[in-house]
Amino acid sequence: MTGVVERTPAQRHLYPRVVRFADVDSQGHVNNVRFLDYLEDARFGMFHIDPHNAGDEPFKGLVVTRHEIDYRRPLGFRAEPVRVETWVTEIRPVRFTLAYEIRDDEAVYVTATSVLAAYDVERAAPRRLSESELAYLKRFSA
Amino acid sequence: MTGVVERTPAQRHLYPRVVRFADVDSQGHVNNVRFLDYLEDARFGMFHIDPHNAGDEPFKGLVVTRHEIDYRRPLGFRAEPVRVETWVTEIRPVRFTLAYEIRDDEAVYVTATSVLAAYDVERAAPRRLSESELAYLKRFSA
Amino acid sequence: MTGVVERTPAQRHLYPRVVRFADVDSQGHVNNVRFLDYLEDARFGMFHIDPHNAGDEPFKGLVVTRHEIDYRRPLGFRAEPVRVETWVTEIRPVRFTLAYEIRDDEAVYVTATSVLAAYDVERAAPRRLSESELAYLKRFSA
Amino acid sequence: MTGVVERTPAQRHLYPRVVRFADVDSQGHVNNVRFLDYLEDARFGMFHIDPHNAGDEPFKGLVVTRHEIDYRRPLGFRAEPVRVETWVTEIRPVRFTLAYEIRDDEAVYVTATSVLAAYDVERAAPRRLSESELAYLKRFSA
Repeated sequence: MTGVVERTPAQRHLYPRVVRFADVDSQGHVNNVRFLDYLEDARFGMFHIDPHNAGDEPFKGLVVTRHEIDYRRPLGFRAEPVRVETWVTEIRPVRFTLAYEIRDDEAVYVTATSVLAAYDVERAAPRRLSESELAYLKRFSA
Repeated sequence: MTGVVERTPAQRHLYPRVVRFADVDSQGHVNNVRFLDYLEDARFGMFHIDPHNAGDEPFKGLVVTRHEIDYRRPLGFRAEPVRVETWVTEIRPVRFTLAYEIRDDEAVYVTATSVLAAYDVERAAPRRLSESELAYLKRFSA
Repeated sequence: MTGVVERTPAQRHLYPRVVRFADVDSQGHVNNVRFLDYLEDARFGMFHIDPHNAGDEPFKGLVVTRHEIDYRRPLGFRAEPVRVETWVTEIRPVRFTLAYEIRDDEAVYVTATSVLAAYDVERAAPRRLSESELAYLKRFSA
Repeated sequence: MTGVVERTPAQRHLYPRVVRFADVDSQGHVNNVRFLDYLEDARFGMFHIDPHNAGDEPFKGLVVTRHEIDYRRPLGFRAEPVRVETWVTEIRPVRFTLAYEIRDDEAVYVTATSVLAAYDVERAAPRRLSESELAYLKRFSA
């Protein structure tokens, strides 16, 4: 493989998410708004719970500044969790972009992207991402 | 008015929305997911409650296939409702696109667009928009 | 009026509540958990928005310490709001009890009671109700 | 052990529940309404997901007719799930009563009871609990 630079594929953050009774609306499928909860739960796992459990410092304040979300196929009640797969597609000094798939082994139900800005909650102002935050993001970036 | 084609500006659907206690998260602002509720409430007013109150037939089934949403400025607790303004930017035989602003007279907090597809709930299949649905959409279209 | 003590009936706080699309679950009725939102919205109107609009000081921190709630008849989609009627059944120096009916002119859907304790959010500790808070509560008490 | 009737303690259904970002309100604790979601999630696990995973028939329709819930101590963000423990305290032909504790090894945050009625969703009418439903309930009853 001389001369070939192999790019490591981005490591995806995997978050198993139960389909809750409350997620399913009167039309019998997980409601479009509720899928944003799935993304929030996955981010909370990725940026708060996982670093905490690993003994790392969790991320300081983050705010969502944009979402794009596409509903690709309906999801109904099921006993098995679905999987929120999350990875990082862009890193800037003060913000970054996430991509997601909500899926199982058979199908992708939702794809989405979010832009998150680093935010200083106490000063109510933007801030720069710290070195340790940037290093963590790079682990999920191609 | 010789030679001048005046375009009637799109009529916007106006939906006053109370900022609920449950909308505000631990960072002190309306949570990004909750704003999707504001859009859903406005659509439910526009496509079900208003037609019903006017003696018209409400829309048959609709499903959201895509959202884009930009969070432009934080919104906190307040006694006055905000206003969800909604209008139609594209109409196709089987789907249409909405644009929204969540705002008051001073500021715009959120802008968004949604693509909605006509859906036959009983057959669980796409359908075409009816004549009366198309006519209703045109009232909110430039 | 000799010998007759007339009791003024308690003034009830009236809060009109739209049945939101998100309130109705996959069984076609307003979900039991969502009715607690109706109670929260009514309390937020009663203790924050109404005093604010009247130029009074809103209540300081309150925390719910208990709910009892009975679901008397199912409620489905409807264009007309229901009414949350709230009144005060007991006042103590550090807590009070509310009773509610969620209803319209034809039927009562839910009855409930809540115990609320006065709470100092900054000190994270119980506190006594202020004179102006007690006076406000008495207006809704028999 | 002559003359001693030993009562088997009720087997409790155990449901681990993550504290979600959305559960925590602007006062910094899990909101009182959100705890009802914890109870619903635990019931959905107990009456639908667990029987499904065990190859048993899940429960037919159930409706909540009453909740009592006491908030005993505030719960904030945490990386570890809490545990919803659920057991059956009364069984009648058409309804049953559950008791719950939301807790961890150190403390009890919430205690509650719910009355659930067997409901025929298609006929929109009460029904009797089936033999297999009664047998399942007895496993969680003292």
